[in-house]
Amino acid sequence: MAYGDGQLGLFTDLYELTMAQAYFSQGMYAPATFSLTVRSYPPNRGYLVSAGLDDVLDYLEGLRFGGEAIGYLDSLGIFTADFLDYLGGVRFTGSVRAVPEGRLFFADEPVLEITAPIIEAQLAETYVINQMNLQTSLATKAARCVWAAQGRGIADFASRRTQGSDAAMKMARASYIAGFASTSNVLAASQYGIPPAGTMAHSFISSFPSELDAFRAYARSFPDRTVLLLDTYDTLAGAWNAVAVAKELEAEYPEDKTRRLTAVRLDSGDYAELSRQVRRVLDSEGLDYVKVLVSGGLDEYELEALAGAPIDLFGVGTKAGVSADAPWSDMVYKLACFDGRPVMKLSEGKVSLPGAKQIFRRRSSASGNSEYGGRESGAGAGELSGDIIGLEEEAGPVDAVGLLQEVMIDGARVAPPVAPGELRDRFREEFALLPARFKGLRRPPPFPVSISPRLQRMTAEVREAAVHTNVSGELG
Amino acid sequence: MAYGDGQLGLFTDLYELTMAQAYFSQGMYAPATFSLTVRSYPPNRGYLVSAGLDDVLDYLEGLRFGGEAIGYLDSLGIFTADFLDYLGGVRFTGSVRAVPEGRLFFADEPVLEITAPIIEAQLAETYVINQMNLQTSLATKAARCVWAAQGRGIADFASRRTQGSDAAMKMARASYIAGFASTSNVLAASQYGIPPAGTMAHSFISSFPSELDAFRAYARSFPDRTVLLLDTYDTLAGAWNAVAVAKELEAEYPEDKTRRLTAVRLDSGDYAELSRQVRRVLDSEGLDYVKVLVSGGLDEYELEALAGAPIDLFGVGTKAGVSADAPWSDMVYKLACFDGRPVMKLSEGKVSLPGAKQIFRRRSSASGNSEYGGRESGAGAGELSGDIIGLEEEAGPVDAVGLLQEVMIDGARVAPPVAPGELRDRFREEFALLPARFKGLRRPPPFPVSISPRLQRMTAEVREAAVHTNVSGELG
Repeated sequence: MAYGDGQLGLFTDLYELTMAQAYFSQGMYAPATFSLTVRSYPPNRGYLVSAGLDDVLDYLEGLRFGGEAIGYLDSLGIFTADFLDYLGGVRFTGSVRAVPEGRLFFADEPVLEITAPIIEAQLAETYVINQMNLQTSLATKAARCVWAAQGRGIADFASRRTQGSDAAMKMARASYIAGFASTSNVLAASQYGIPPAGTMAHSFISSFPSELDAFRAYARSFPDRTVLLLDTYDTLAGAWNAVAVAKELEAEYPEDKTRRLTAVRLDSGDYAELSRQVRRVLDSEGLDYVKVLVSGGLDEYELEALAGAPIDLFGVGTKAGVSADAPWSDMVYKLACFDGRPVMKLSEGKVSLPGAKQIFRRRSSASGNSEYGGRESGAGAGELSGDIIGLEEEAGPVDAVGLLQEVMIDGARVAPPVAPGELRDRFREEFALLPARFKGLRRPPPFPVSISPRLQRMTAEVREAAVHTNVSGELG
Repeated sequence: MAYGDGQLGLFTDLYELTMAQAYFSQGMYAPATFSLTVRSYPPNRGYLVSAGLDDVLDYLEGLRFGGEAIGYLDSLGIFTADFLDYLGGVRFTGSVRAVPEGRLFFADEPVLEITAPIIEAQLAETYVINQMNLQTSLATKAARCVWAAQGRGIADFASRRTQGSDAAMKMARASYIAGFASTSNVLAASQYGIPPAGTMAHSFISSFPSELDAFRAYARSFPDRTVLLLDTYDTLAGAWNAVAVAKELEAEYPEDKTRRLTAVRLDSGDYAELSRQVRRVLDSEGLDYVKVLVSGGLDEYELEALAGAPIDLFGVGTKAGVSADAPWSDMVYKLACFDGRPVMKLSEGKVSLPGAKQIFRRRSSASGNSEYGGRESGAGAGELSGDIIGLEEEAGPVDAVGLLQEVMIDGARVAPPVAPGELRDRFREEFALLPARFKGLRRPPPFPVSISPRLQRMTAEVREAAVHTNVSGELG
C-alpha cells in the first residue's frame, strides 16, 4: 500500500479510533494479544496457505498519523485534543508472532498473533485482516490450481479482473508462492522478481487486414517467443495460419532452432476437443515442438477436467484471481489476552480461544504408517500427521515443531523480507508433506487439529468466569 | 492507485507491451477505438451501475514509463532500444467517451470507449478493466442492498474483508454512490467526503472486567454517539446492560437530550428474533429513541428477509464488499475500429460489436402506460423504457438521449471530477426511473436493449468480410 505520507493510519475502521479514544481516556495502555484465525474453512477447502505477512510487517513499521490525518480527525469533532496529540506520535512498538508465509495452516489455528499496547494492536485490525484474508485466500486458491494442473505450468493472467489494483499485485505474488510459473502483470513481475508472461490479444489480430498478417507481424518482432492466439475468428483456421507462420520461421532460420514458434493459445470453446484437433494439425505438419496454451474461464475444477487433454500450459485469470468459489474467508482478529488476563467472546457461532497461543505440528515417522506415530523417534520425518493448538507457554509434544515464529519485536522486523521465490520453495516442500487426501478439490476431510488439554482447561475457566460476570447475573 | 513515480505504465499485462513493440515495428500508430462492455449479466443482475470512470481518467492522465520502469523492461531482453525510447515518452493523447458514473447501463452496452493511437489505447486495457469491473460490480451490489433495505440506512463495514486495500477504498466510494449512508473506512471517508461511521468491537468489551464496565467507559467518552455492541457474551443480557447505561446518561444529563444512547448493535444470532426481543426490552424501559443496528453476514438477500424486523440501521460488510454472489463480471475491452475500419471478433460465445457506438436511452411519457411510447411528446419524462445501441455517428431516435459523453479529449479531462455526493444524487434520480420489475433480486427480466438497424447491418458486413478473409479460405 502506498498512500500519502502519514495517511496510512487512516486506513482503519472508525471504531478502532473511537475505541482508542476510550482506552486513552481510561488510561488503558496495557499490552493486549490479538489472535488472527480463520474460524471455518471456505467451501471445499481443507487447508490454507499463509500469505500476507510481509505486507503486515511493512504496514506496522510504517503506521503513522501525519498532520493532515490528524487535521481530518479533528474536523470530525468527536476526539479530544490530548488524544489527537497522542495519536500524532503513535508508532507500533509491539511484537508479532506468525506462521511464516508459504506454510500451511488450518481452521481455528492462529496464523498470526500481535502483542502490543492495546491501542496500537487494535488500530492494526483493519489492515491486518484485509491483507491476510486476501493473500491467504488467493494463495490457497492458486495452490488448488497447481495441484489440479498436475505438473503443467500455470501463468497468472488475472490482473484485469482482480478486485482492484492491490489485489492484482497480491494475486501475482500469492500465486507465485503457491507454484504458478509466471505472471502477466509487469509491475508485479518487476517488484516481486516473478517471470513475466504474455502472448497477444484478439485486438492485435483484428487490427491487421487478416489473421495471417497479424501472426506474421508478431513473429517478425518475436521470432524466439511467439505464442499465437487462434480463436479470434475460427480456432482451426487459426491453427493452419499458425502452421504457415511456423514453417516460415523454419525456412527463414533453418540453423537457429531458438527461432521457432513457441506455442499457440486457445481462449474459447471446448478446450478438450479443440486442443486435440489443434495438436493433430500441428503434429501432422511435424510441429511437435509447438506447445498448446489454454486460457479463459479456468479454475482448479476446469484444470482437473482437462487432465487428459494435450495441453502444455495454462493461463489462469479471473476465477482464480477473485477466488470465485470462495471470495472471502471467515478470518477474524480477536482479543485473546489483555493485561495478563486471558479473554474470549461467546457470541453465537463465533466463540474464540483465549490466551496467547502456539501451533504444534507433527509429522509421522518417515517409514511408519501410523497417522499419529513418530513420538518414539523424536520429530517425525514423514508426512504431516496432525496439529495441536496450545498455549504459547506450553512446551508442546517432544515430536512437534512450533509454527508461530517471532517476526517482529518492539516494532522492528527480526529479519529482512524473504524473497517470493524462496517462499515458493518453502511452500512446495511443505505441501509435498500434506497427505493427498487433504488436497482433494471437493469436500476434503478435515486435517486433524486438536486443542491441548491446558488450553481446553483455560477455555472452560475463562468461559465460566465470563458467563458468571456478564450473563448469569441478569438471566439467573 | 499510488505507485512510484513513473511506475504506473508497468501496471499492465506483458502482452500489451509485446503487442506495442510489434505495432511500433510495423509503424502502426493509427487511431483505434476500444469498447468496454459487460457481455452478460452476473447472476441475478438485471442492471449495472457505472462506476470507476474517475480513476480511469486519473490513470490516463498519469500514464508514464519512468527511467526505472524502462530499465526493467530493457532487462527482459525482448524489446528493441528504439521502442523503449519511444515508450519513455509515451503519454495518453486520446479521447474517452463514457456513461457517466452513477448512471445505469445494461449488458452488451459500451460503458466506455477509448479512441487513441493504437499503442496508447492498448496499454490502458488492464487498468481500465480492473477498475471499471471492480467499481461497477461493487456499485451494483450496493444498489441491490439499498433497494432491499427499503429506506433503512446502510453503513459500509467491508474494509477488513474486501480483496485488498484498493478494493476497500473503492467499496466505500461505490457503495456511497449507490446510496449507502456512510463508511467505516476513515481514509475513504476523508478522501471522498463520505460520513464516517463506527461503533465498538467485541475486543473492547472483553478488555474490561465486565461488559457493563466497557459500556460505561465508552459512553463516558462519547455520550452523544454511543452504539453498544450486545452480543459479546449474551445478546439479551447485553440489552439489559445497555438499558442501565442509557438510564445513567438520562440521569447524568437530564436537560441535554443529545446525550442519549444512540443505538445498540447485534452482530450474531437470529437477527429477526433478537431484534424483536431487544426492541421489547428497550421499549419496556421507555427507550424508544434507542435505535437497533444489525451487522454481520448481511447482503441484499438477508436484508430482504429482515424487511419486517424492528431494525433501524444496517452495517453491511464482507458479502457486499466482495460482491460474494458475483465477484466478477464478464467485462471486456474489445477493438471496435482501427484506422477507420470497423472490426469485431467471432470467438465462440464472445462475439463483439464493431464500430464506435452510442447508447440511446428512452423514457416513456410521464402519464402514458406505453412502455415504448413518448415519441409523440419528444423525449419522455417517465420511466426508462428501453435502450438502443447504435453507431456513434447515428442521430438516434428523436425521443432518446445519448448516454456516452465525451469526458476526455486529447488526453485532458473536459471537466473536473464530480464529487461522490453528487454522483449519489445522480444515481438516486436515475434509479427511481427504472421500473421496479427490473430491480428484483432474483432473476429479474432483461431490460429492453436493442441494436439499431445500421449497427445490425454493419455487424453483418464486418462478420462476412472477416469470415471471408480468415476462415472460409481454409475451410471452404
